[in-house]
Amino acid sequence: MRAITIKQPGGPEQLELTELPIPEPQKHELLIKVHATAINRTDIINRETPLGYLQSPILGVEVSGTIVALGSETSYKVGDSVMGLVNGGAYAEYVIMPAERAMLVPEKLSMAEAAAIPEVFLTAYQTLFWIGHLAPSETVLIHAGASGVGTAAIQLAKQLTQAKVLTTAGSEDKLTVCRSLGADFTFNYHHGDFARHILEATNQQGVNLILDFVGSSYWHQNLASIGTDGRWVLIGTLGGNVVSAINLFDLMAKRIQLTGTLLTPRSDTYKAQLTKEFSHVVLPLFSDNKVKAVIDSVFPFEEIQEAHRHMEDNKNIGKIILQVSSN
Amino acid sequence: MRAITIKQPGGPEQLELTELPIPEPQKHELLIKVHATAINRTDIINRETPLGYLQSPILGVEVSGTIVALGSETSYKVGDSVMGLVNGGAYAEYVIMPAERAMLVPEKLSMAEAAAIPEVFLTAYQTLFWIGHLAPSETVLIHAGASGVGTAAIQLAKQLTQAKVLTTAGSEDKLTVCRSLGADFTFNYHHGDFARHILEATNQQGVNLILDFVGSSYWHQNLASIGTDGRWVLIGTLGGNVVSAINLFDLMAKRIQLTGTLLTPRSDTYKAQLTKEFSHVVLPLFSDNKVKAVIDSVFPFEEIQEAHRHMEDNKNIGKIILQVSSN
Repeated sequence: MRAITIKQPGGPEQLELTELPIPEPQKHELLIKVHATAINRTDIINRETPLGYLQSPILGVEVSGTIVALGSETSYKVGDSVMGLVNGGAYAEYVIMPAERAMLVPEKLSMAEAAAIPEVFLTAYQTLFWIGHLAPSETVLIHAGASGVGTAAIQLAKQLTQAKVLTTAGSEDKLTVCRSLGADFTFNYHHGDFARHILEATNQQGVNLILDFVGSSYWHQNLASIGTDGRWVLIGTLGGNVVSAINLFDLMAKRIQLTGTLLTPRSDTYKAQLTKEFSHVVLPLFSDNKVKAVIDSVFPFEEIQEAHRHMEDNKNIGKIILQVSSN
Repeated sequence: MRAITIKQPGGPEQLELTELPIPEPQKHELLIKVHATAINRTDIINRETPLGYLQSPILGVEVSGTIVALGSETSYKVGDSVMGLVNGGAYAEYVIMPAERAMLVPEKLSMAEAAAIPEVFLTAYQTLFWIGHLAPSETVLIHAGASGVGTAAIQLAKQLTQAKVLTTAGSEDKLTVCRSLGADFTFNYHHGDFARHILEATNQQGVNLILDFVGSSYWHQNLASIGTDGRWVLIGTLGGNVVSAINLFDLMAKRIQLTGTLLTPRSDTYKAQLTKEFSHVVLPLFSDNKVKAVIDSVFPFEEIQEAHRHMEDNKNIGKIILQVSSN
């Protein structure tokens, strides 16, 4: 089968299309003929500096596709259209998925849309509710509102709670999309310090929850934007890893809970539980058109280098899809 | 009545004994004739740099004493011996306490022991269980094990869970006390990096929970000592507030939850709920001699300056009590 690996850690030019054997499903696993996969920041990190938490030499953590073989009996059958997270190996014509990680593709969704769902929606759900404990009457600040996780988080916060959603993004087009998805307040970060505006929009109380994909460059503004007893979930460091001086007493004075998280390296059991709850709570919202996968662009399989460059240019609104097969 | 206030923010020499009117209880409040109070770090912070979260010009946040008047009917009656947290004003012959904050002094305890309980035991309980969610089979690292909160936390962790308790302290005498209270592993921080020893004692897994009173000087060792999905509760910064160069990705890679907390500035409602649960769960352990108040020393009311200096010298094992009246 055709698959994408890296020659050596580095830029997009290191990505190459190679020929590898079709994997074989073990007990409780599915073999899936991949229709589409999607590009994630974790793929870029793995391309640049392999972290070692994925066993597979093939990049990619999510797919949509058709079941072609079962490692043992499950509730799924050959021919089912499914989507879900995989332990690496998604940039390929065939991939192995643990059966308890698979979700049936909701009615009315295309396979490209299905490939846009698992990573960002499960991450947004986990971050908002399992870690962030967002409550109905609260306020949440979602950075990078037009990113894959951002567009998912805005919708989930609005559909599953009455929370007030505040977002930042880097262009007027992106802010328009955020508002169309339900954001109550948007701010273009190129227009200066967002903290003052967040405080104004929250009656000087600050927000109850921050979804932070940015890290160090936003540290001080986030600290100023968060309210007493606020939860701050750190899920990315697009603005850098290292904060030059953190005053720990600031965390005590506001009684802040700062939680770092990553989805990809978590256990199979965790991902299965998250998938199960998400399937029950969120998937019906897709069929009802209350929540949608936001797709920025679809690249052919052969154009993987361009797809990675497009994400690194930071101009995408929603997900970048890689189409692996056309049937 | 006699009470202790400060002339101006500064050292122990700023503490002075003055004459002030006896306060009057409002609805749902008790007027208490104080037997004893205790010295807390928060008093030192308030003496040096008043934070403004206490309304009272009189220092001190906890007492034991006898009810002499009720602002309205409560389940308590005049003559009851009680202990509990107050909103400032504890260094005085009389103090006001919200009725829902009062706890009857357990049988067999002296009034000096009773004054040693509220602040450190409620803080330890809140930190271990409400914030730290310590589970029975886990491991917890308690720094400053011989401090007031440390001695309380070691006992509560051992009595209320089967957790493995690891502690650090600064002298062999202190470590001996920690072990006598139930600590499973002790380390003298003057003997170098504790992280290596903590990892050895936890099969290289790191601890599930850290109670951190130290802050910046322990930052990197704590980061090395904590396990994946660990909770790290920051309740003091004896080793400094400011950490230079924090790498946020470290928090993500281990999925650490770092929570800052302070008990004194929390709401009346919060303190009432904490007091209620603590009374139910922990107070019986005092009557059964399973948990004890650890008292370092008892100073007469007039020697408040010496009492503060003694805490600042960091040599105390357990609580420093201030005896306000002898009957």
